[in-house]
Amino acid sequence: MERNDQNMPFLLRYENVAWYEDSKVRILDRRVYPTEVRFVECGTYQEVAQAIADMVTQSAGPYTAVGMGMALAAWQVRQEGREKQVAFLRQAAYDLAHARPTTANRYGQITYRAAELAEAALEAGKDPVEAIVASTVESLNRRYSVMQIVGNELAELIPAGGSILTQCFGETIIGTVIRAAREQGKDFRVYCAETRPYLQGARLTSSCFAEMGFETTVLTDNMIAYAMQHKGIDLFTSAADSIARDGHIANKIGTFQIAILAKYFGIPYYVTGIPDRDKHSKDDIVIEMRDPEQVLRYRGIPNCLPQVKAIYPSFDIVPPHLISGVVTDKGVYVPYLLDRYFDSEVKAFY
Amino acid sequence: MERNDQNMPFLLRYENVAWYEDSKVRILDRRVYPTEVRFVECGTYQEVAQAIADMVTQSAGPYTAVGMGMALAAWQVRQEGREKQVAFLRQAAYDLAHARPTTANRYGQITYRAAELAEAALEAGKDPVEAIVASTVESLNRRYSVMQIVGNELAELIPAGGSILTQCFGETIIGTVIRAAREQGKDFRVYCAETRPYLQGARLTSSCFAEMGFETTVLTDNMIAYAMQHKGIDLFTSAADSIARDGHIANKIGTFQIAILAKYFGIPYYVTGIPDRDKHSKDDIVIEMRDPEQVLRYRGIPNCLPQVKAIYPSFDIVPPHLISGVVTDKGVYVPYLLDRYFDSEVKAFY
Repeated sequence: MERNDQNMPFLLRYENVAWYEDSKVRILDRRVYPTEVRFVECGTYQEVAQAIADMVTQSAGPYTAVGMGMALAAWQVRQEGREKQVAFLRQAAYDLAHARPTTANRYGQITYRAAELAEAALEAGKDPVEAIVASTVESLNRRYSVMQIVGNELAELIPAGGSILTQCFGETIIGTVIRAAREQGKDFRVYCAETRPYLQGARLTSSCFAEMGFETTVLTDNMIAYAMQHKGIDLFTSAADSIARDGHIANKIGTFQIAILAKYFGIPYYVTGIPDRDKHSKDDIVIEMRDPEQVLRYRGIPNCLPQVKAIYPSFDIVPPHLISGVVTDKGVYVPYLLDRYFDSEVKAFY
Repeated sequence: MERNDQNMPFLLRYENVAWYEDSKVRILDRRVYPTEVRFVECGTYQEVAQAIADMVTQSAGPYTAVGMGMALAAWQVRQEGREKQVAFLRQAAYDLAHARPTTANRYGQITYRAAELAEAALEAGKDPVEAIVASTVESLNRRYSVMQIVGNELAELIPAGGSILTQCFGETIIGTVIRAAREQGKDFRVYCAETRPYLQGARLTSSCFAEMGFETTVLTDNMIAYAMQHKGIDLFTSAADSIARDGHIANKIGTFQIAILAKYFGIPYYVTGIPDRDKHSKDDIVIEMRDPEQVLRYRGIPNCLPQVKAIYPSFDIVPPHLISGVVTDKGVYVPYLLDRYFDSEVKAFY
């Protein structure tokens, strides 16, 4: 199978996202990258689901991880009768889809398809593990292809020699916008909001851009207004964990306030990604509340007295009036008119 | 000398700020508090200046530290002739005042007075060290008294049972607003922005409020809009490292963007403190640029690849149109009319 991760930063190469091999799924531990390059090895699909819940991988990483987790589930149950195998795989599809609530619909598209494929393979006397691995790689290739169109569109919007601001880690779009910019011979500066509490911006996004030769600067999350005022930010861009058809999007906590600041400073904000067909409005978006303890510590070091509390909403919702455009594989949509995306055929994406 | 730090949180008690004793100045190390209670011991005034530059103590801590540093300078030079002593003390006054640029004017008010007092003591055949220590404690008491009026005013503005948001660590005002609220029998919830890169909000402000029995919640710096939207924040308040007479203020990086967010959500923002007589407009405010390396690490743990850059402006400037009022010892001023503060007598403050 031809790989579609050429000229991609280390972090985005297939085997670093989540890979099934020798009845194990190995996932690059993004909680410590790039300070350490360490893999978490999962021997069961349940461990894969836990790794996703624990944010060993995040952003688009789980799309691959849940697929490979399904392959592992098929391996786990290989010695049982067909009926038991089918039941086990359906359970695995459910469990992996629900590893995190906000993106359960996207994960589910991958895991339920994998369960069906496995059933068909069993029916045909073929190896379900192989079938699922092949389908996961195909899905990854498809995602890279579709998101390459989005990356090309986004690269067009960035002024040559300009500066962009990112939030959290847009995963595939980061890889594809880099590839597009390199092909267009376009250079720009990148400011990454560090994105507490996990610092995905500081650790992941900045690593990708810096590795590929872009001038990359990290900002703590409280430097955004300062940078917009003093550093000539031309546009703010983020991916989204949910894109509702009414133009509301959910993305990593902090995106909402950066969008407000962008509006204040007159800086356009472009969201990248494919709208979620099954999310009609913001009411269909579930915000995951994570363990507040993760806010009170950093890499295990506590910051506060024991009686101090915290909150940890994983995402926040940005309303359409703060979004300049949603960059999709079919062009850039006015957020209020995003529903039109579904007027023409939609490719399978996840 | 009677102490004016009764019923204050641990962090604000005199001996924890910076204390001269036995020819040493001991400063509570706020970079690790409250996880560790550790003191940095300085044997020379130069070490005190370095400790301030390194942010062993910050906010109002240096007002005491530079005074005690002057006592140490007087001790260092005690065996020299009077002329040498005077020259040394003048140099020390300059060096300590310039330990950090944004507040050099405030530090200078303390250090030059200390140098004068020492000269007068030498003239009178008295111990200059004792004279400076006494004057520093007096200055601290005076600050607590003046800021108690400000604390009373601020406590009046907080709705009983309401919620406030803080940024960084307001030091004296934190102590005095707590004392005022307790006396007024008023309770409220406190949300502390954690304030990267040093986390003064998470470590210092939250410790003070929590220790004194307030329900205290830490937010990462990217959760402000979310909290304003969902948590019923009644007002945002901060101290300021500079308050110019034209209503511009400088405070810890991030204050500017919280002020923008407060405006967006219709939440009043009250700045506390005494205007700087010698700062007529924002052009008189110097923003200290600190070592960007401090943004790329956390407690020594690097987050980024070596080729990634950062910026670290220590403060940002908030324009008057984002400020609802400046709470002073003479009442609450409309920021555009702040110059009127100087229409009547001004007490020595620092």
